[in-house]
Amino acid sequence: MEGHLHTEGFKDLTRVDDALRILMRNIGQPAAKLERVDVRSSLGRILGERIVADQFVPPADKAVMDGYAVRSEDVQSASEKRPVILKVIGESQLGGVCRVTVKHGTAVAVATGSLIPAGADAVVIVERTTRLPSDKVKVHAPAHVGESISKKGEDVAPGTVVLTKGKRLRPQDAGILKRLGFNSVKVVGRLRVGVLSTGNELVDSPKKNALANVVDINRPLLSAMVLQLGAKPIDLGIAKDKEGAIIKALVRGLKTCDIILVTAGSSVGKKDLVPNCINKLGKPGMLVHGIAMRPSMPTGFGVVKGKPILSLPGFPVSAIFAFRVFVRPLISRLMGTDDTLDPVVRAVLKERVNGPPGYRTFVRVKVKRSPSGLVAEPLKLQRASLMMSMVAANGIVTIPEDVTAFEAGQVVDVSVIGEIE
Amino acid sequence: MEGHLHTEGFKDLTRVDDALRILMRNIGQPAAKLERVDVRSSLGRILGERIVADQFVPPADKAVMDGYAVRSEDVQSASEKRPVILKVIGESQLGGVCRVTVKHGTAVAVATGSLIPAGADAVVIVERTTRLPSDKVKVHAPAHVGESISKKGEDVAPGTVVLTKGKRLRPQDAGILKRLGFNSVKVVGRLRVGVLSTGNELVDSPKKNALANVVDINRPLLSAMVLQLGAKPIDLGIAKDKEGAIIKALVRGLKTCDIILVTAGSSVGKKDLVPNCINKLGKPGMLVHGIAMRPSMPTGFGVVKGKPILSLPGFPVSAIFAFRVFVRPLISRLMGTDDTLDPVVRAVLKERVNGPPGYRTFVRVKVKRSPSGLVAEPLKLQRASLMMSMVAANGIVTIPEDVTAFEAGQVVDVSVIGEIE
Repeated sequence: MEGHLHTEGFKDLTRVDDALRILMRNIGQPAAKLERVDVRSSLGRILGERIVADQFVPPADKAVMDGYAVRSEDVQSASEKRPVILKVIGESQLGGVCRVTVKHGTAVAVATGSLIPAGADAVVIVERTTRLPSDKVKVHAPAHVGESISKKGEDVAPGTVVLTKGKRLRPQDAGILKRLGFNSVKVVGRLRVGVLSTGNELVDSPKKNALANVVDINRPLLSAMVLQLGAKPIDLGIAKDKEGAIIKALVRGLKTCDIILVTAGSSVGKKDLVPNCINKLGKPGMLVHGIAMRPSMPTGFGVVKGKPILSLPGFPVSAIFAFRVFVRPLISRLMGTDDTLDPVVRAVLKERVNGPPGYRTFVRVKVKRSPSGLVAEPLKLQRASLMMSMVAANGIVTIPEDVTAFEAGQVVDVSVIGEIE
Repeated sequence: MEGHLHTEGFKDLTRVDDALRILMRNIGQPAAKLERVDVRSSLGRILGERIVADQFVPPADKAVMDGYAVRSEDVQSASEKRPVILKVIGESQLGGVCRVTVKHGTAVAVATGSLIPAGADAVVIVERTTRLPSDKVKVHAPAHVGESISKKGEDVAPGTVVLTKGKRLRPQDAGILKRLGFNSVKVVGRLRVGVLSTGNELVDSPKKNALANVVDINRPLLSAMVLQLGAKPIDLGIAKDKEGAIIKALVRGLKTCDIILVTAGSSVGKKDLVPNCINKLGKPGMLVHGIAMRPSMPTGFGVVKGKPILSLPGFPVSAIFAFRVFVRPLISRLMGTDDTLDPVVRAVLKERVNGPPGYRTFVRVKVKRSPSGLVAEPLKLQRASLMMSMVAANGIVTIPEDVTAFEAGQVVDVSVIGEIE
């Protein structure tokens, strides 16, 4: 009800998907510059180049099991009852090159990872053999061509596209880069995201008049969310609710940041100065103001000097949702990668939840395990003014614009935002 | 087949769940020490104390909308046709304390976040009012008791358990800590995890004899996985395949690390020295050696001087799975938190996948979006020797011990380990 009535303040609201389209249409190409980092420090960074292999992995045929490299035709008839006896003419040491050639009736001992000597086309694993005195080995089973051998280039061959540009690097991605001989790699530089809070009541640590003053938590909160995306938060401080102060902070931010997030003062009241300040800074100014979503309806954004400025609501809960819906995909886009999606689980809804028609509604829930599967319990207090609704929640249920309610007992998708107990 | 036959080398294999139980039973209480960090640097850290509120949030009744603080009984009959006119006797400024008291027939202007003056019990939102000259306001609608007011302590009251010990801190958790006046917080210290590679063929950068030598990627790989869990990797270097060298490195590791991960030399061949070395270091030594899982069967672990030492297979893919199955829950337990679970999606399997009876089998898949939902395509090459099977994969399908196959078209759970395109 709150949201519906508050709408009257806004002349009209923009639907989430429309707003996202407008945002993305008005920003340029990925803004972040590339930089070169050590592969060992690349975890979580976004790859700034396509990696195409220029070598073979493995670089030559190698044994993948301990045993004997043989000519498969020599052991074709081998069985427990009629083993084949071969002469062991050498050993292919790990880390060494084996210079002997396997000829008819001979074998070379190999270990997992050692080179296959010339002439051999199969490895008989050690468990199918019995070593005899005087350099002989009894083979109890056949081995087909290629058995227990990792062929040259089987993993990667020259020309293989190993990693695509824009990929967020995982441990195994760094691993393959090391294997291909890369010590450093081009990654997308950390986007510089300015974080500005506005409000006469805000302070950075509790002081006198603790009832009326509020410790600003939006800057630490949004900075942490920016960090999670691999971008770099830039603290633009707290601006008083005065046009001059806000404009001054924004001008400073435009000089050093790629995008700016401003919290509070985002609605249509007389203290809501931020959208006007953005308009005064330059063209095109505000593009969207007021979104058909709950919470976070008084969200808006504009572009000034080619840089997006987002005007987010002051309640931390609202700021979080506005960040999730607009800032996260924006930062990902500007860093040349896809939006990080939350893990999604399916859970049985414990109670009915409502969403006003036409709005996208985000319901904070607590997901719990039960003998019959996951259950999602909507938190009692969903107001944007209540920080605990985000702290106690480990999941979010999204009610789309054309749905007015999900019923108790219904199975719903839940975005997971915390540990499930 | 490979796995089944290789089993012959192991006298018997331990089932995954049994091995996990043995591991957890043989380690002590959480080993990591607590340390105090700035709340702003607490992202992703594990909370080492329970946080109980000692104050009210908000500290007093506050407006959650712009409007007028009134006595609800004064506006009980207000309507568009019959508005109620009140005298505006002041304004409750943001960040200030309002000293006037709202009495019968009066109102005080409020903004979102400002203190509710004494005497008022509701806020009429600005959209339901018309300001008149001479300090009057016309109210067009009633407001019930408490409307648009956030009551003192509504978010948090003294005694509320705000965060539980062992929780991994998110941006909003740091936010509520700041709001409660915390500047620092006790978190679990980073567990020190030694990472040792063994193998005569291993080098740290490509050198002469590039065919036979292999750049060690297990240390960077496992170090990155350790970092992802918020623990601290300690590089123990590369040890040659000699008992003396391995024992020396392990002794060094036991001095500085809380747990040690050793890769390669973990099977039952004559070059597989690690389990013996662990036994020689002290009691109880090896607890489990050989696990009924694929890949990563030649995995084992022991405890020496109260510290777990894990013997992981040398193939990076196998090392990753052994890490996921054993090391991840172990590190979480020793850091006093729950295992980080992968997000899980449900997807339609594109092809049949098999798992040998009695083994837990991990199939690497590529999950893709399709018009009818998610589809999981098993990667063609699943051998543990192929690193690309982990690089190209963004999902893992687990075939339990008592299932021999999942059929094409079947809907399966997929653990998500990378971006879904």
